[in-house]
Amino acid sequence: MPFVNIRITREGATAEQKKQLIEGATQLLVDVLGKNPATTFVIIDEVETDNWGIGGQNVTELRAAAKNSSTLV
Amino acid sequence: MPFVNIRITREGATAEQKKQLIEGATQLLVDVLGKNPATTFVIIDEVETDNWGIGGQNVTELRAAAKNSSTLV
Amino acid sequence: MPFVNIRITREGATAEQKKQLIEGATQLLVDVLGKNPATTFVIIDEVETDNWGIGGQNVTELRAAAKNSSTLV
Amino acid sequence: MPFVNIRITREGATAEQKKQLIEGATQLLVDVLGKNPATTFVIIDEVETDNWGIGGQNVTELRAAAKNSSTLV
Amino acid sequence: MPFVNIRITREGATAEQKKQLIEGATQLLVDVLGKNPATTFVIIDEVETDNWGIGGQNVTELRAAAKNSSTLV
Amino acid sequence: MPFVNIRITREGATAEQKKQLIEGATQLLVDVLGKNPATTFVIIDEVETDNWGIGGQNVTELRAAAKNSSTLV
Repeated sequence: MPFVNIRITREGATAEQKKQLIEGATQLLVDVLGKNPATTFVIIDEVETDNWGIGGQNVTELRAAAKNSSTLV
Repeated sequence: MPFVNIRITREGATAEQKKQLIEGATQLLVDVLGKNPATTFVIIDEVETDNWGIGGQNVTELRAAAKNSSTLV
Repeated sequence: MPFVNIRITREGATAEQKKQLIEGATQLLVDVLGKNPATTFVIIDEVETDNWGIGGQNVTELRAAAKNSSTLV
Repeated sequence: MPFVNIRITREGATAEQKKQLIEGATQLLVDVLGKNPATTFVIIDEVETDNWGIGGQNVTELRAAAKNSSTLV
Repeated sequence: MPFVNIRITREGATAEQKKQLIEGATQLLVDVLGKNPATTFVIIDEVETDNWGIGGQNVTELRAAAKNSSTLV
Repeated sequence: MPFVNIRITREGATAEQKKQLIEGATQLLVDVLGKNPATTFVIIDEVETDNWGIGGQNVTELRAAAKNSSTLV
């Protein structure tokens, strides 16, 4: 009965991509630990880029800076 | 000083229902553990049905399937 | 399919009390929102009193101070 | 590589204030524990006032009551 | 820069299995959303079976009951 | 009434350092948003290095590798 919480920035993940995250995370728990998928929960939280920081900067700024570079975050 | 986080799918819970969840969860901590309600926090997160999976399927799909059945989730 | 996370300080909650929290939180979701108990998860986290702060002080200190007063937290 | 999750009520925090929270929380981990800011995450969740309870009441009610008093929450 | 929190019951997951969860969850975010693994965090929380409830019962009880049946949770 | 959850690896943070995290996080919310410290919660979770992954590797491995380098994580 695992619970998986995936937090990503809100930057256009599609319904199809979110389905793949749910399927993939559920299958991972089945494959590695033999968990029952019927009682495996996955919750995806999409967070505004202003509300997510890394290295002391928010992702809005990081994305703007990355336009001039090849940095992938 | 307990902290309670209730996560539900965003499917039309009313302000009144959410008040009842806050009151009920707070009272539960008072009744069972004698906690002080004044320092008991309750946070309700409402999650899009596309973003919640169970059994490897998202709730949007489960709700559509349930229309043809009596399954309650 | 709600998910409830109850966080309390680790101060001797018994297995019986934790059962009551699980039962009570599950029933609350049934009563207020008509949720299916079979797919309702409750997770209790017990947090060391050194690791929980309120008002800028940790609970270890608050408990020591409260011994000389009637404050309930 | 710390992870900091700050939850506040959604009551008009500006992008600038949220930047300050991200910078401040990141710096705190550097100052106290010598953590590497480059791998420090901060996520801010803004929660509707109907969805946050304290003392068994939601913040929407507490804010209305506070208009007639000097209580700060 | 995703953040994945996997919560499982504390029932003997090995260091090797936890490595596989970390690798698998990281790869899932790369495959589905093209995220940078270098800034992908995975945290596994192992929860005591007394502290996890489903269907209003804790997992300690469910495991005891399951010994006499083929139920997988 | 903010809630701050700080997650760090369990690598010997002292009670004094954790006090500083609680004080600092509480003060940050006061300084930036004018929040009331009396209703500000801080919870610190210390996570085993086997249970925290970054870049697809757990911190136990990263620490071992870092002994031969100057990498700070």
